[in-house]
Amino acid sequence: MNQDYIQSSEWSIIEEGFDIERVKSSESLFSIGNGAMGQRANFEEKYTGATFQGSYIGGVYYPDKTRVGWWKNGYPEYFAKVLNAPNWIGIDVCINGEHLDLFTCKKVENFRRELNMKEGWLERSFTATLQNGIDISVETKRFLSLELDEVGAIQYSVTSLNSDAEILFTPYLDSGITNEDTNWDDKFWDTLSVNFENNQAFIEARTLKTDFHTCTFMQSQFFENDEEINLQSEISQTETKISLAYSKVIQQNQTLSIHKFGGYVVDRNHDKEKLVAVAKNVLSQVTNLGFNTLLEQQKKSWTKIWNSADITIDGDIKAQQGIRFNIFQLNQTYSGKDALLNIGPKGFTGEKYGGSTYWDTEAYCIPFYMATKDQKVARNLLEYRYHHLEKAIENAKKLGFSKGAALYPMVTMNGEECHNEWEITFEEIHRNGAIAFAIYNYHRFTDDYSYIPEKGLEVLIGIARFWYQRATFSKDKKKYMILGVTGPNEYENNVNNNWYTNYLAQWCINYTVENIERLKGDFSSDYTRILNKVQLSQAEIEDWTSVADKMYFPYSEENQVYLQQDGFLDKELISVADLDPSQRPINQKWSWDRILRSPYIKQADVLQGFYFFEDNFTNKELERHFDFYEPFTIHESSLSPCVHSIQAAKLGRMEQAYQFYLRTSRLDLDDYNHEVEEGLHITSMAGTWMSIVEGFGGMRIKENMLSFTPKIPKQWKGYSFKVNFRNNIIKVNVSQKETTFDLLSGDEIDIFLNDKHIKVTTN
Amino acid sequence: MNQDYIQSSEWSIIEEGFDIERVKSSESLFSIGNGAMGQRANFEEKYTGATFQGSYIGGVYYPDKTRVGWWKNGYPEYFAKVLNAPNWIGIDVCINGEHLDLFTCKKVENFRRELNMKEGWLERSFTATLQNGIDISVETKRFLSLELDEVGAIQYSVTSLNSDAEILFTPYLDSGITNEDTNWDDKFWDTLSVNFENNQAFIEARTLKTDFHTCTFMQSQFFENDEEINLQSEISQTETKISLAYSKVIQQNQTLSIHKFGGYVVDRNHDKEKLVAVAKNVLSQVTNLGFNTLLEQQKKSWTKIWNSADITIDGDIKAQQGIRFNIFQLNQTYSGKDALLNIGPKGFTGEKYGGSTYWDTEAYCIPFYMATKDQKVARNLLEYRYHHLEKAIENAKKLGFSKGAALYPMVTMNGEECHNEWEITFEEIHRNGAIAFAIYNYHRFTDDYSYIPEKGLEVLIGIARFWYQRATFSKDKKKYMILGVTGPNEYENNVNNNWYTNYLAQWCINYTVENIERLKGDFSSDYTRILNKVQLSQAEIEDWTSVADKMYFPYSEENQVYLQQDGFLDKELISVADLDPSQRPINQKWSWDRILRSPYIKQADVLQGFYFFEDNFTNKELERHFDFYEPFTIHESSLSPCVHSIQAAKLGRMEQAYQFYLRTSRLDLDDYNHEVEEGLHITSMAGTWMSIVEGFGGMRIKENMLSFTPKIPKQWKGYSFKVNFRNNIIKVNVSQKETTFDLLSGDEIDIFLNDKHIKVTTN
Repeated sequence: MNQDYIQSSEWSIIEEGFDIERVKSSESLFSIGNGAMGQRANFEEKYTGATFQGSYIGGVYYPDKTRVGWWKNGYPEYFAKVLNAPNWIGIDVCINGEHLDLFTCKKVENFRRELNMKEGWLERSFTATLQNGIDISVETKRFLSLELDEVGAIQYSVTSLNSDAEILFTPYLDSGITNEDTNWDDKFWDTLSVNFENNQAFIEARTLKTDFHTCTFMQSQFFENDEEINLQSEISQTETKISLAYSKVIQQNQTLSIHKFGGYVVDRNHDKEKLVAVAKNVLSQVTNLGFNTLLEQQKKSWTKIWNSADITIDGDIKAQQGIRFNIFQLNQTYSGKDALLNIGPKGFTGEKYGGSTYWDTEAYCIPFYMATKDQKVARNLLEYRYHHLEKAIENAKKLGFSKGAALYPMVTMNGEECHNEWEITFEEIHRNGAIAFAIYNYHRFTDDYSYIPEKGLEVLIGIARFWYQRATFSKDKKKYMILGVTGPNEYENNVNNNWYTNYLAQWCINYTVENIERLKGDFSSDYTRILNKVQLSQAEIEDWTSVADKMYFPYSEENQVYLQQDGFLDKELISVADLDPSQRPINQKWSWDRILRSPYIKQADVLQGFYFFEDNFTNKELERHFDFYEPFTIHESSLSPCVHSIQAAKLGRMEQAYQFYLRTSRLDLDDYNHEVEEGLHITSMAGTWMSIVEGFGGMRIKENMLSFTPKIPKQWKGYSFKVNFRNNIIKVNVSQKETTFDLLSGDEIDIFLNDKHIKVTTN
Repeated sequence: MNQDYIQSSEWSIIEEGFDIERVKSSESLFSIGNGAMGQRANFEEKYTGATFQGSYIGGVYYPDKTRVGWWKNGYPEYFAKVLNAPNWIGIDVCINGEHLDLFTCKKVENFRRELNMKEGWLERSFTATLQNGIDISVETKRFLSLELDEVGAIQYSVTSLNSDAEILFTPYLDSGITNEDTNWDDKFWDTLSVNFENNQAFIEARTLKTDFHTCTFMQSQFFENDEEINLQSEISQTETKISLAYSKVIQQNQTLSIHKFGGYVVDRNHDKEKLVAVAKNVLSQVTNLGFNTLLEQQKKSWTKIWNSADITIDGDIKAQQGIRFNIFQLNQTYSGKDALLNIGPKGFTGEKYGGSTYWDTEAYCIPFYMATKDQKVARNLLEYRYHHLEKAIENAKKLGFSKGAALYPMVTMNGEECHNEWEITFEEIHRNGAIAFAIYNYHRFTDDYSYIPEKGLEVLIGIARFWYQRATFSKDKKKYMILGVTGPNEYENNVNNNWYTNYLAQWCINYTVENIERLKGDFSSDYTRILNKVQLSQAEIEDWTSVADKMYFPYSEENQVYLQQDGFLDKELISVADLDPSQRPINQKWSWDRILRSPYIKQADVLQGFYFFEDNFTNKELERHFDFYEPFTIHESSLSPCVHSIQAAKLGRMEQAYQFYLRTSRLDLDDYNHEVEEGLHITSMAGTWMSIVEGFGGMRIKENMLSFTPKIPKQWKGYSFKVNFRNNIIKVNVSQKETTFDLLSGDEIDIFLNDKHIKVTTN
């Protein structure tokens, strides 16, 4: 079902009308987050219809037992999963003793939900007739503070419309929660204490196995109409829940409101013995500020984000809404403040993919964060992998590698591998290349070389060692080969000589050697420190180089293209256009073997290499490869269309580029894949941003300067985007007629526009 | 640990001395079975040390939930597993109120265990000093009747050595059992009733999900010295257990014995409402006969088996013991009476591989049963697959095939696929070929063509359709290819154009078409019936043929060998001899990806094809392929050495053939793989038989006659084997000097000896 029920709006996501079938999808779409935590848009009040409850804390995960039919040596014992965290948003609402529950109300009308992306809050309002005949109107607003990222605030107001009524608000904390994907009644949380003091309540809970300590907390304030009132609480508690009930009779047309403040403090940031004390401080700080002041702060924080990250699209409101939704969600997921956190494919909006880190971060997300935030943020993402280097070396050891070779995990929370399909875990090794590429990309964009001598080179050396050891020599072809891999196109498994992987491997070795040379000249103390630390000899470097020099690349003379892998031409090459549409998506309709023997490409593979290393190929070559591979590309990964959009734009095929762009920009809003209820596709949202900035805008780094070759889809009047380049914020305005620039921050900047050098200054 | 603690003996497996470390291994080695049921050699009396309890009923299994990390379309929902069945052998023994438990006795001496293969019984004796100071000697003998295959008998005798003593025998039935491989406290059995009548006791239990109904039963007789006595029972029972206690004080040096009869009746053979009544009949029949008469029957039954199946080896007692152990276990596992049963890789000796049917049956076991039993037995094994044809068609449908294409499951209990690794389940499709080959093999050996028009052709058509649909056309090579398969060498996954698979596919199509033609001429009513039933047209047959005619076979001109699969020469071709021995077995030492990219071959792959279709290749070709592949073959499948032994013998390399033979013949007795405690390698035992009969003896069918080209390892003085060929039983005696024949049944038979025609007659 293509839901398409979201109202068009430039700055907001709006749903009107209550439909129980849409509740789970809307819970995803209206999710809120602040980088440190996030939550699905679950109702505060009781809801007995179908719902997918989720509140997540960044960095708090659980290592679930690996489940496989047949164990293979090297499989990780655990599979880290994101955990549904104790509920702090809950407010049971009773009207004259009857629970408010939208699933059982006699009537629900004027239901409206708005996620205001400009200011960062979620609002919901409706009128309802209860079974007891009372008509009420409800308005709620909530947000997770960007400024104080351990706390969220809820304003919940009930107006009795047709009579006086007793309103009972029962805000609660509940650690008796489970995951949607829980098997066999697993228990993940161990509740340590449930207590209260005055109007504050706390639940201390630790995760089993990982022993993350958390304190979930709440405090509430009450208002009759707009006037604050004091209400006495009645406390009830169980081993995993604490509820404070507050009631008041209000007259017809009067409004009783609760302002509930809550959230989590965790032992990543605080002494675990003092979590309750810290929570008390947080509560006293926010209750002093009050809901409205916190909300003003929130608006300011979001204004700041948009000031360096907004994209406008003129003449296409759905496209405008789509791109802002993507930018908004990326910012909700990752703020860049904490080098221990990363970007899960579903952010804080669902459980799938375990909330773990994939190569998506390096390949798709870093460009976005790098160009819209302070460069420290991208550097934090690089450091995340530096922190995991030892674990990557251990991981490689488990697979038989030695001498400091590092294989970064396919999926991880803490550096350990968390995935357990052999064809992915052991063979989708190109991820190692993306991690090296991100170091190059960061340096290229920021001109901050310091990361490499300080930390990056060690990562590069571990990766180069891996590729050197992973290659094997074919006497028959007199070349080094990389056998048994899975490329970015996961619709091929265990193939030989995936061109992208071989190319990255060669590049990684060469780039590492190049940086070793540079350090030797320019950073000799770092050079000595690192080479001693990792025990690297000149002879080893020469061994690497000989592998890189003799790397094999499968090539078709007839088609003048690199082959995605050995034997690609042996397939039955029926293009996607000629495939019976009833067979799609093939990942739902076909068994795995059928997918594997087909020519269909899940996402850019050879073309991903052309994207990373475009300067190494001519436009003619790009065109030939694009024309050869795109017809077999079935784009069943949300990460596929963006790379194709960028390359189509580069080839001047704007209509095609625009069509690819459309496939990602509203992927979730329009629920193309019929799965939005499971959560949002956060990492692919960064790809959508790339489609505009790198694709349409043609942003590149040339000669160490920003360069643009803007193009514009004929469907748009104009568009603009902002780039934070080395502390200059430049706004690029593209219309059907011309491209103009505004320098929003900084004094002046030299750039290329369509390969011509121009200077942009503050107006 | 290479256990090697079994005493050498021509006809028996003997263990002397009690070692708690060996209990689980011996439980496997001393297993007994009668084709309908089987059990590990668990002690009758209480044992609190490490033990692996197992009693299994043929055809009684449980569909466990499939466990995978990531679900793939087409995976079966369930994985059938063999179930540990209710315990009927248990006899608690108390001496003066103290439990006899070999784990806690003060002293255990003269412990001896014998599995008498000639007569089919298991014996155990020991003396023990209990904690209470009483010395006793114990003798037990038990067997599962071949004649009455629902029943087993135990004789358990206790002699008090140093004082008078009260002996308490408490025989019991217990359905409160679990599997060793149980996860998450799964419950498999639902006990329906526990009851008794006179001295008989019964537990009715049904398996959950599969709803197999069983009745486990027992009755006991008592003897003081050799005189039958009456003892009164004291009954105790729980929801899943019933115990009848019998006690008597005996004087020093006197012996109290219990004869316990027990077993299972199941609703595969009886009305499920009448199982208790049937069990009563069985018990009255066997108690009337008594232990000794039953034992005499047992000896006769085994004599009959050995009369047509024995192999003698003169001058090598360990080899003699090894081959008889193999023949014995094969006969314990499968009697051939019931076309609904088959041969699990571990028989009735353990839980691994789920007790299910693999292609082992067709490729390795049918030759043994065909040549040592009435041809009806092999035909029953063929019919097993005919009964599963509809399920094989359903299975193929799940994978996207249509129009009656059949893919037999890799692993099955009832025709449904039970395995869930995509590279096996979906891709190890060569199994389909072995099932067709078995039909050919049966006809070749027995000259019974009737199976093909009656049933076999339908199976062949389903298989031919599968291969036709599975092949894809490569425009590049202008050939049909079979992409994405796993060959018999499971150390390669998802390869293209596995030569063995492609060859089998081509052969299957051609053989099917050949048989269709024969039916058209000779069995026209069957022809019409079948072609109508399966809706097969001449056009479809022509389509098949065009695929078979244009099948692609990877070939190396340089090496003049067929390549195991595309790209085999791209590997780093280091021979097994040059591999660091500390790295072996690679399936324990290496991660899966490393195994996959290595050149190492788990079991014969190209050479398996040369074995099946040897007449299609010259000896020179065989030699070239053997010399090319054997050096990379690491023989980590128990099914590997036999095929190599046969081929080495064919090439006249007797020393090599003998070495290969040794690797299988005592695989379990000497516990080469350090895993015998999990159960025995039943199907590979048939391979050992083939090594002697087809390898050393050179038995073949030529010009529709038996043919022998006997060779003999220099280590042996002589050997003999028996073959049941078309109702003639011929004994082949090979010495270092000559080969002689005895016709044990039948009047005369024409055979080839070293390609010369001779006539063998009754002496």
